[in-house]
Amino acid sequence: MILDGKKVAQEVYDELKNSISKLSSPPHLHAILVGKNSPSMRYISQKQKWAEYIWMQFTLHNFDENITENELLKCINWLNTDTWVDGFIVQLPLPKHINESNIINAIAPQKDVDGFHPINQGKIVIWDASWLKACTPAGMMELLKYYKIDPKWKNITIIGRSNIVGKPIANLLINAQATVTICNSQTKDIDFFTKNSDIVITALGKPHFLTTDKISQNTIVLDVGFSVIDGKIYGDADFENILQQWNPITPVPGGVGSLTVAMLLKNTFQAYKNK
Amino acid sequence: MILDGKKVAQEVYDELKNSISKLSSPPHLHAILVGKNSPSMRYISQKQKWAEYIWMQFTLHNFDENITENELLKCINWLNTDTWVDGFIVQLPLPKHINESNIINAIAPQKDVDGFHPINQGKIVIWDASWLKACTPAGMMELLKYYKIDPKWKNITIIGRSNIVGKPIANLLINAQATVTICNSQTKDIDFFTKNSDIVITALGKPHFLTTDKISQNTIVLDVGFSVIDGKIYGDADFENILQQWNPITPVPGGVGSLTVAMLLKNTFQAYKNK
Repeated sequence: MILDGKKVAQEVYDELKNSISKLSSPPHLHAILVGKNSPSMRYISQKQKWAEYIWMQFTLHNFDENITENELLKCINWLNTDTWVDGFIVQLPLPKHINESNIINAIAPQKDVDGFHPINQGKIVIWDASWLKACTPAGMMELLKYYKIDPKWKNITIIGRSNIVGKPIANLLINAQATVTICNSQTKDIDFFTKNSDIVITALGKPHFLTTDKISQNTIVLDVGFSVIDGKIYGDADFENILQQWNPITPVPGGVGSLTVAMLLKNTFQAYKNK
Repeated sequence: MILDGKKVAQEVYDELKNSISKLSSPPHLHAILVGKNSPSMRYISQKQKWAEYIWMQFTLHNFDENITENELLKCINWLNTDTWVDGFIVQLPLPKHINESNIINAIAPQKDVDGFHPINQGKIVIWDASWLKACTPAGMMELLKYYKIDPKWKNITIIGRSNIVGKPIANLLINAQATVTICNSQTKDIDFFTKNSDIVITALGKPHFLTTDKISQNTIVLDVGFSVIDGKIYGDADFENILQQWNPITPVPGGVGSLTVAMLLKNTFQAYKNK
């Protein structure tokens, strides 16, 4: 069974569009892009496309790649204080002469619709439902909710421990009363955990890493891997074979990743409401 | 083998005392206590005793239990801004008419030496070594370091998922490259995880919960349980039998808990240095 991220995202977009249509003035999302990195430009154009689809205002600030950290911080400060800005993102990665932590820490937490600021990471740990959650983890929770998969009391293994996927989804699932194991690439006998899991979330970036022999027949697979080989996109899972075994699984592309932009816009709407 | 928290704490105190003796003016810790709850008063007097031992200044603000939330927030605001205050704590629990979250969120993160503020929880997730860590989890890391137990690549099971123990220690250990499983009281087949663990951390508050049959012969046990029955203190582990099986284990009292105050004072010294 395919867990269709695109379909879930479409429902989120349509709900948001409906809510925004009832407002006197729409929420306004800003995005900062430094330089002309082409994957970044593609991501930004996706965000713009969907923002416009739901009638959200979208403004792009595209700076030259030689912008200094100080100049960038000035722009962030302006976005932080401007009451017409509901939320904004700084598209990563940034050029090497700019310290990404300094930039993320400078964003006003209530406008940090990517959910990267430490205070937003902390609100996920101690659980504050009204707060802005990192978008990819929030997308997984949305997908599980849509398919009526309650994480409560389930065994869940997460492979990968990044700040924007592995660790925040772990904290969300712990709060949802799951038993959560966080593995890394050096975990001894990873199969021990994955085979005993109701849900496996993989975010390694290693194509065909998760094969049918690593999971049980009922394991649900959320694949957050993303690799491009010879122009073709791969997740971490051996999708075809796992699907043939009837396990529910998210495809790549069209799975969890499709929900990331939807959650960004949902966060922006949340930030607008919190104001 | 007994993992002696008291001994490790004493070393921390002596190091701090030595560092403070070289300063022109000592760090200053403040504590807010509301009412006359007797366990709270005992905890506060322990903190005061050790602060004085290491020549740290200590000031107690003891308010009547009828103090309003607003009055308490005013005091916090004053402590936040006074440059002579390096760090302060609000002793929990607070009376029911005061919202604890509001109070914790009001503490300036750089003076939050309990490490309870969401930004400090978030800094643990994304890993910022200079930041103020929740004291009991930080104490466990100190104990492991003292006994040269490196969490890297180890399987670690944590039973309990509280905001001040289970979740922050999980995040610290994930960042230390351990494979971490966080269980709760409803986990199906908890033995599956504990028996396969190099380290088990238990923080349930259920005496004799962790018995020898739940662990392997080499499992290290960190017992953060704390229950009082007929005036006697118990941890979660069947201490005598586990010890007889030669597993390394922390006693209760005298184990992990002994390090909590030491870590509070270490945080206060850190806050002083960060200033």
